[in-house]
Amino acid sequence: MAHTTYKEDSQPTIDGPAEYFTGKVRVQSVFPTNETAHYSSAYVTFEPGARTAWHTHPAGQHFVVTDGIAWAQSWGGPIEVINKGEAVWFPPGLKHWHGASPDTAMTHLVVTGSLDGKSVDWLEKVSDTQYSDR
Amino acid sequence: MAHTTYKEDSQPTIDGPAEYFTGKVRVQSVFPTNETAHYSSAYVTFEPGARTAWHTHPAGQHFVVTDGIAWAQSWGGPIEVINKGEAVWFPPGLKHWHGASPDTAMTHLVVTGSLDGKSVDWLEKVSDTQYSDR
Repeated sequence: MAHTTYKEDSQPTIDGPAEYFTGKVRVQSVFPTNETAHYSSAYVTFEPGARTAWHTHPAGQHFVVTDGIAWAQSWGGPIEVINKGEAVWFPPGLKHWHGASPDTAMTHLVVTGSLDGKSVDWLEKVSDTQYSDR
Repeated sequence: MAHTTYKEDSQPTIDGPAEYFTGKVRVQSVFPTNETAHYSSAYVTFEPGARTAWHTHPAGQHFVVTDGIAWAQSWGGPIEVINKGEAVWFPPGLKHWHGASPDTAMTHLVVTGSLDGKSVDWLEKVSDTQYSDR
């Protein structure tokens, strides 16, 4: 038995698809799910003004801000500012979004639970009106 | 339903206990386990030469190097160098250690599985002879 190392060549960077993200977003894999750990991790970087669409996670998600300032909002609540080093937990089924502030890029490391192979359910985009409601 | 935010005041920094670590080590909580996510996260920083004792994790552990260069070794294998941005998975029960290189401090973010409330079983210290065998 040995450990597994995820070197750079196993950590492809992809653009966040326009269907699910507003603005420029890059996603870099950190580690995948495995037979024991039903959660995966990635760095997700948002240029200023960029954000996810509204979405839910069937097994929840944590993120920790590693650079810049994050904005996050759960459905019906206010937009919250999350600083570097701080973390957030979205429980299963909670409708929410997260992204950069209008003027500062943001990177967070996400740890996303997986249920029956599924980690996210995408909903509608976050409108400019919703995003500016702070 | 709302998200949970772990602000700085919920992320205490503690020294890695001398019983389980060699050299100066700081542990800062990022997020705890919860009812859904049976894994927790922390930043762990090692001064040059510092390392964990040998140990195992009942539900495995991932880490990603966020600063510096990590050394890691599984029992019976070589010491491996892990660079910033790279990640490692230690499966349940694998005897291993990790820490800084002799000349460079290292910080990694760990994501540690929990089984029946337990996340680590500590073993003997990594001797200077074992640590210098690279």
